[in-house]
Amino acid sequence: MTSPMFGKVALVGIGLIGSSMAHAMRRAGLAGHIAGYARREETLDAARACGFADSLHSDVREAVRDADLVVLATPVGSFGELAQSFAPALKQGAIVSDVGSVKSAVVRDVGPHIPQGVHFIPAHPIAGTEQSGPESGFAELFDGRWCILTPPPGTDEGAVATLRAFWEACGSNVDIMDPKHHDLVLAITSHVPHLIAYNIVGTADDLEAVTEGEVIKYSAGGFRDFTRIAASDPTMWRDVFLNNRDAVLEVLGRFSEDLSALQRAIRWGDGDALFNLFTRTRAIRRGIVDAGQDSAVPNFGRNPKLPPKP
Amino acid sequence: MTSPMFGKVALVGIGLIGSSMAHAMRRAGLAGHIAGYARREETLDAARACGFADSLHSDVREAVRDADLVVLATPVGSFGELAQSFAPALKQGAIVSDVGSVKSAVVRDVGPHIPQGVHFIPAHPIAGTEQSGPESGFAELFDGRWCILTPPPGTDEGAVATLRAFWEACGSNVDIMDPKHHDLVLAITSHVPHLIAYNIVGTADDLEAVTEGEVIKYSAGGFRDFTRIAASDPTMWRDVFLNNRDAVLEVLGRFSEDLSALQRAIRWGDGDALFNLFTRTRAIRRGIVDAGQDSAVPNFGRNPKLPPKP
Repeated sequence: MTSPMFGKVALVGIGLIGSSMAHAMRRAGLAGHIAGYARREETLDAARACGFADSLHSDVREAVRDADLVVLATPVGSFGELAQSFAPALKQGAIVSDVGSVKSAVVRDVGPHIPQGVHFIPAHPIAGTEQSGPESGFAELFDGRWCILTPPPGTDEGAVATLRAFWEACGSNVDIMDPKHHDLVLAITSHVPHLIAYNIVGTADDLEAVTEGEVIKYSAGGFRDFTRIAASDPTMWRDVFLNNRDAVLEVLGRFSEDLSALQRAIRWGDGDALFNLFTRTRAIRRGIVDAGQDSAVPNFGRNPKLPPKP
Repeated sequence: MTSPMFGKVALVGIGLIGSSMAHAMRRAGLAGHIAGYARREETLDAARACGFADSLHSDVREAVRDADLVVLATPVGSFGELAQSFAPALKQGAIVSDVGSVKSAVVRDVGPHIPQGVHFIPAHPIAGTEQSGPESGFAELFDGRWCILTPPPGTDEGAVATLRAFWEACGSNVDIMDPKHHDLVLAITSHVPHLIAYNIVGTADDLEAVTEGEVIKYSAGGFRDFTRIAASDPTMWRDVFLNNRDAVLEVLGRFSEDLSALQRAIRWGDGDALFNLFTRTRAIRRGIVDAGQDSAVPNFGRNPKLPPKP
């Protein structure tokens, strides 16, 4: 029997991503021991019932003790305090990483607490569902998705290679990127999409002339798609926006400018401007389906039966 | 053998919705003869290969001749001209309906052409996929979805009851509504969601600092969801926005106002405002899933395996 990639892995946070990592590690035999940390007793109980961890802790120092890989997987606003708290218990030669959706703020908040002799490599697996909590994780979450590593300049190459191999063994493709560029890319591919989804669901909820019952009944016209990502974890997403302010505001500015132009095209009946945009956007959908990043089945496969092939 | 609900049904337009109606009528045995009309030869050829129509026509008067039910199912901008063209061939006692996503404009454009003795009942089945064309239709499209009828004041009650029974036999639930209210409800549940989806895909395409390849690779962060509806038929959607201008601009104004408030909350680090909105929006998702209008499975069921139950 070959020995696992890591003797011990500590998951500091065992929600959707942390628990999915545990399942993926089990599937590939990547860890001799999986330790999980959560602040609340009920989260630990839920994780215990799922059985994906070898040990569960409410003391973060105990969770990380002797760990070869420590992964922060709580909302990003809590990273700094947690890192400060567990830093004295870190093993020499260990890798500290995370799964946060922002990266510059993680470098800023976690970096200063990492002791000499410990490797710090921020990471972001771009995968998820609208669910949260230890029960929501599953081994296949990262299959075929991308994980972005943002190692600070001078990071040990061997440690980066190890973390890359770890994510590949969890099913991911891996890219290396500068944290600032990561934050801009994710602002357009994830953060602003979530923001406008949350926003339109809020707008619908606030309209006086349309009832909530009507919004629900007729949501298959398109609205329902937005409610899925607007059902994502509120704490996680609050922290994303508070910690990627500049990139989000920059992309949001562009979005609003473009929307004003569309609004004007509608007001003045400029059908060509509308038609041209609506044609151009089809190509990106095709690119995403061709790259295996979304289902090719119509309606995400939600219809009871697929259309007959011609 | 019982006789079908209609001796002959004419589908003026045989794209996604028209062809799905043909399949649903066949499934329920609702029509003795299904006639299809399309302007272009290649659309007629594609429909012929699918086999869902008993006769296919490039002359709209021939298609509607002797029909008991005539359904306009082309982009709404073409309705007026088509109705004017087929009006002289309509049978006395026939029902003329449509499937357009706007209703006030249909009353305005089609109503004046309907002869005495013919029943005019606009309708809108709220169902669809991002695909288009005769090959994309399937019988189950309307199952469990809502169809809204907007009969003008004074419409024959028997004709309304017949059209209601028709849509119920196609699998739909049926509501009756005022066309102006329909247009406002659909602006929030369908039209503005499509507009902002098209818009963000356009914004992503235009960013200089993020490549199209990056947008595609990292789209699983949320962006990919928007690309589905932004791949919908450009002509159909151009006509929707040109023909529901007032309601779309009203809802869009509210959306933009709300988005400005969110933008301000991000700029000033108001985490409570963000958290409160992100919590409120979860309830609407639950309502939609509970009402059977969307899948309860995480990620619309796109993951290779469902999460284990706790």
